[in-house]
Amino acid sequence: MPETMRALVKATSGPGFELRTVPVPRPGAGDVLVKVHAVGICGTDLHIDEWDAWAASHVRPPRVIGHEFCGTVVEAAPDVHDVAVGDFIAGECHVNCGRCHLCRRGDAHICESLQAIGVDRDGAFADYLVMPARNAWKMWPSVPRDVAAIMDPFGNAVHAAFATDLSTRSVVVMGCGPIGLAAILIARRAGAASIVAAEVNPFRLALARTLGPDRVVDPRAEDFGRVVRSVNGGEGADVLLEFSGSPQGLHAGLSALHNGGFASLLGLPHRPFEVDLANDIIFKGLRLAGIYGRRMWETWYQGSALLAGGLDLHPIITHRLPMARFREAFDLMRAGDCGKVIVNVEDGA
Amino acid sequence: MPETMRALVKATSGPGFELRTVPVPRPGAGDVLVKVHAVGICGTDLHIDEWDAWAASHVRPPRVIGHEFCGTVVEAAPDVHDVAVGDFIAGECHVNCGRCHLCRRGDAHICESLQAIGVDRDGAFADYLVMPARNAWKMWPSVPRDVAAIMDPFGNAVHAAFATDLSTRSVVVMGCGPIGLAAILIARRAGAASIVAAEVNPFRLALARTLGPDRVVDPRAEDFGRVVRSVNGGEGADVLLEFSGSPQGLHAGLSALHNGGFASLLGLPHRPFEVDLANDIIFKGLRLAGIYGRRMWETWYQGSALLAGGLDLHPIITHRLPMARFREAFDLMRAGDCGKVIVNVEDGA
Amino acid sequence: MPETMRALVKATSGPGFELRTVPVPRPGAGDVLVKVHAVGICGTDLHIDEWDAWAASHVRPPRVIGHEFCGTVVEAAPDVHDVAVGDFIAGECHVNCGRCHLCRRGDAHICESLQAIGVDRDGAFADYLVMPARNAWKMWPSVPRDVAAIMDPFGNAVHAAFATDLSTRSVVVMGCGPIGLAAILIARRAGAASIVAAEVNPFRLALARTLGPDRVVDPRAEDFGRVVRSVNGGEGADVLLEFSGSPQGLHAGLSALHNGGFASLLGLPHRPFEVDLANDIIFKGLRLAGIYGRRMWETWYQGSALLAGGLDLHPIITHRLPMARFREAFDLMRAGDCGKVIVNVEDGA
Amino acid sequence: MPETMRALVKATSGPGFELRTVPVPRPGAGDVLVKVHAVGICGTDLHIDEWDAWAASHVRPPRVIGHEFCGTVVEAAPDVHDVAVGDFIAGECHVNCGRCHLCRRGDAHICESLQAIGVDRDGAFADYLVMPARNAWKMWPSVPRDVAAIMDPFGNAVHAAFATDLSTRSVVVMGCGPIGLAAILIARRAGAASIVAAEVNPFRLALARTLGPDRVVDPRAEDFGRVVRSVNGGEGADVLLEFSGSPQGLHAGLSALHNGGFASLLGLPHRPFEVDLANDIIFKGLRLAGIYGRRMWETWYQGSALLAGGLDLHPIITHRLPMARFREAFDLMRAGDCGKVIVNVEDGA
Repeated sequence: MPETMRALVKATSGPGFELRTVPVPRPGAGDVLVKVHAVGICGTDLHIDEWDAWAASHVRPPRVIGHEFCGTVVEAAPDVHDVAVGDFIAGECHVNCGRCHLCRRGDAHICESLQAIGVDRDGAFADYLVMPARNAWKMWPSVPRDVAAIMDPFGNAVHAAFATDLSTRSVVVMGCGPIGLAAILIARRAGAASIVAAEVNPFRLALARTLGPDRVVDPRAEDFGRVVRSVNGGEGADVLLEFSGSPQGLHAGLSALHNGGFASLLGLPHRPFEVDLANDIIFKGLRLAGIYGRRMWETWYQGSALLAGGLDLHPIITHRLPMARFREAFDLMRAGDCGKVIVNVEDGA
Repeated sequence: MPETMRALVKATSGPGFELRTVPVPRPGAGDVLVKVHAVGICGTDLHIDEWDAWAASHVRPPRVIGHEFCGTVVEAAPDVHDVAVGDFIAGECHVNCGRCHLCRRGDAHICESLQAIGVDRDGAFADYLVMPARNAWKMWPSVPRDVAAIMDPFGNAVHAAFATDLSTRSVVVMGCGPIGLAAILIARRAGAASIVAAEVNPFRLALARTLGPDRVVDPRAEDFGRVVRSVNGGEGADVLLEFSGSPQGLHAGLSALHNGGFASLLGLPHRPFEVDLANDIIFKGLRLAGIYGRRMWETWYQGSALLAGGLDLHPIITHRLPMARFREAFDLMRAGDCGKVIVNVEDGA
Repeated sequence: MPETMRALVKATSGPGFELRTVPVPRPGAGDVLVKVHAVGICGTDLHIDEWDAWAASHVRPPRVIGHEFCGTVVEAAPDVHDVAVGDFIAGECHVNCGRCHLCRRGDAHICESLQAIGVDRDGAFADYLVMPARNAWKMWPSVPRDVAAIMDPFGNAVHAAFATDLSTRSVVVMGCGPIGLAAILIARRAGAASIVAAEVNPFRLALARTLGPDRVVDPRAEDFGRVVRSVNGGEGADVLLEFSGSPQGLHAGLSALHNGGFASLLGLPHRPFEVDLANDIIFKGLRLAGIYGRRMWETWYQGSALLAGGLDLHPIITHRLPMARFREAFDLMRAGDCGKVIVNVEDGA
Repeated sequence: MPETMRALVKATSGPGFELRTVPVPRPGAGDVLVKVHAVGICGTDLHIDEWDAWAASHVRPPRVIGHEFCGTVVEAAPDVHDVAVGDFIAGECHVNCGRCHLCRRGDAHICESLQAIGVDRDGAFADYLVMPARNAWKMWPSVPRDVAAIMDPFGNAVHAAFATDLSTRSVVVMGCGPIGLAAILIARRAGAASIVAAEVNPFRLALARTLGPDRVVDPRAEDFGRVVRSVNGGEGADVLLEFSGSPQGLHAGLSALHNGGFASLLGLPHRPFEVDLANDIIFKGLRLAGIYGRRMWETWYQGSALLAGGLDLHPIITHRLPMARFREAFDLMRAGDCGKVIVNVEDGA
């Protein structure tokens, strides 16, 4: 084991990152030390890069960032029994307390004391990572490293999609970033009756079309609700999967549902905005679910079953860059002309 | 049967009503003619009185208003088999089409072709009313007429309350108008672990306190979230029943829930307003349900079972006025220093 | 319209049927007259043929049998508005009362006053059939007649399969008659993680294998539970769809579930048999659902969506015979070396 | 701390127990040492006493028995953080593995590697007990010791009762042993529309009547189904809570449900018996749930909320005996002329 390693660090309270040489961390009780293979870039990482208000109030520098990752366990604390050296693992980035009523009733993913790897504690944009063993999800060795690296955002899509039953139901997907793209794949696999997606970025719009939904629409160019109804025999859709986080996306998505429809809300708005509760939710008798993180561990079992069943995430991974080119990777993600961008921490990962 | 009757009529496109003499209506196929006993005044009736934007776009004068009512069937069309002359009935005001996918899948209460008695067709502020027989719910003769007259708003409360399970759960009730007051009674009956209610009108606040919740709070005078947590051992509540329709009420109610909580949204906002989706819904992993009308007929069975089990609605009925004093009744309801206001159409009702 | 027609009649209280010439029936209020195209043979029809104890206590001769069918509406009563002459329809064979608490709460399929077409009233093995218009489900004209004729048993499979969510879940199908075969197709379409089926008839076993499940097993030749666990990484299955109705099938199916699993029970045992409630249900914390008929009309919407999405029922239809060869058709069905057997009532159907 | 203690021990593979002096056990990693106050006698303890086939195959002597208990923590292993010396606790007797898919998906109560305190490891009929700290549920100091001692069987009743929603629903309780008696109290608190219970033992029948159900029936003396329907306006019941474990009880209970009803099955039959699946379950479209143990920890939160809300378990505790009179206590429980029998391990408990 080397004594030092490379790490992408939010060094000071301001924009940007530094690629530093830092000590390899040491596992404490219940921890494993993981050799990192690959890391995905998340929207959260962009916020930390830009040092916006959310980042300034949540991140305390110096902090190694990165929370979508896979790697191999190279050391385990003596009290760790369920994960072993040599295990190929993906990371659940939310460290729950295990003691509160939410953790004890099956809602650990919204534990009110959650800590996030790469935000509240050092993360995975580094050669090595220390994490709680119970946050490591064992992957089959045959899963490609770039796929294993995005089990976390894939899990967001799984969580949102399976908040209700999709089989035989008409589905609307608002926003075709990596999570929305994954949701299209999941809805198809689950036997959705139809899938209509919305996206404004031309690159992502074109990419979404390759995944087989019935229609992908730029809602600035077409009447989204009309398209949804034309695809569904004149009726609104059964289910909305909302990943845009925008006022327009939410309103268009809710409007596209028939009365009694269901909406998973995952996309995070930048700020509060006006919602027409009466017309868009109450008169329609809608059901809504706020979706955060991944259910521990139902979502992971579901996601693994999807992969085992042949669902292929490769189409949504568009770029792979080595760690030295992290700046390029972040700028690419910010520009949005991409699906998921992976940083290969390990050569040849 | 007389040929004419009294009726409270929205006569022209503008504020106010007229108490007119009009012909007694005749039942068509599937209809019954009902001798009206008593009618409740609803917030919707106030909108029609005031002739606000909603009323102007939904009501076509001349229109007899009134949709919370009870009466006795005095005539039934030949094809009516389930209701008979002499039956004492309460009215479900929503006339559904019976043909659309919502009606055929158990969501008739949000049929996209709903017509409302007293809004889209002539209503119950009259000596007689024609209505579809299938919208008549038979009451036991022993149910008091003022109680039978408010099965509709009581049903709103039942629908909102039983959108989730309340037994052993901590409940927050925002808004103590007649529906909120009924919800307090229902939550107690269902074995809620605690009930904390919010109301700003002093009359209603005092009335709510007589119904036995753990606390009733004026949220302008106390920190509502703090009260909720102090009642619940430091935790937020499990369930929000939102009847205020106000930005402050919704925000305070959602904030009072612990992560993973459930919210029934029934109170209708006057206009769109800002909602903090990220912090109030998504990060918290809340579930929400838009509540409209009454499930046909699950809600009616539930409401009837509550009455049969001894739930007494009399405490929430504060005023009973004869039809000739309708103006007084409406002004009282608008001022808000009341629970439910009943208009006795029939002398001695 | 001719005055007489051919009809397959249970003429007397004893085994067998007669192909008779009888008057064409006349539609009453709410009815349609349907020109029958094709009829499926159901296990119930075999019971009526054999005149077993169940048949003797339920069927009053003379009775035209047949309840899985499609046809074209040739006459509609004046009060029928939702179905028109010329409509191509499939039949829901259960005529519910529409008045009881079950019908009024969304459980019309188990109305306690159900009447079955072809059992309690004259059925579809005839050139013409009178049925309530509300039991007619409109099909697209492009649906093949043999497929439209089996919407009823297909609906049984849909009902059983969607009593729980199948996406990403491991499924066991006990019994590969027509309903079990359809369930395999549905589970695949819904994204089941794995499907293991059991069948003892070699013809059906071979047929089931062509539909793409992970394994089809003769449980007399292999340890069924071991096969299920080997397919599912050592764990029991999530969901049992029980169509065998046999003691061995039920026990093997329940035993193949992991603790907490779900079972849809549709296969009707011939008589009561021993069940090990403690070990097979209670200690395991299983959930079970008795499945009867088709939910009205959720199941029909789901079934139609499956067909619209490309699910092809043709592989499970193995024989088509003209009405004159009904005896051959019944004997074939009884021998069991078949999938679904269709009787073409209309030449060239 | 003394070095030895009294303990009720299954000493050899045969009937009976011995009250022995044994070493006080020492807590291992994750454990607490508990000073036992009081212990309830469970049906399982009777099986171990009698050494029937189940006991012979599950218990390896010597074994200290007892699994319904409360006590005070007197020592905690260094790695225990959530329970402290001095805490007053009740015991969850099921020790789950925490590693399997059931534990990780919220079904820890049916973990396939469950170990039971007092069966698979030494139990609570002793002055001291070692148990995993995570199986200790902290009680308020104000809860009486005899009530705290029966949180486990009370939890069985809570689990069975809240497997569905009871508010406004008609409930049937088969078997009025301690769990059935508790279920009556719970159903009343949850606002059940009606409660009809069945019991054959005259002592328990009389005791059940004091708890306020609508009717308690000896089904050998009256037609149980007729009583249920007469209480419920001619309809069957909505919910069955089955605690008898007998063929007659199950059949009478299922028959008393209307179509579409729900049944919680908790009573453990001594052996497999005949069930009429077709008529009692499938044609009726029933839903059933096998109920085992207590959901960790939802059931405990619910049970605690019931106690906090004033539900009083004292009426179902009929006998309290000191440890020296254990034989008398067991014989009393076996005879059945009792509610719950408590053994006070500590003087004055």
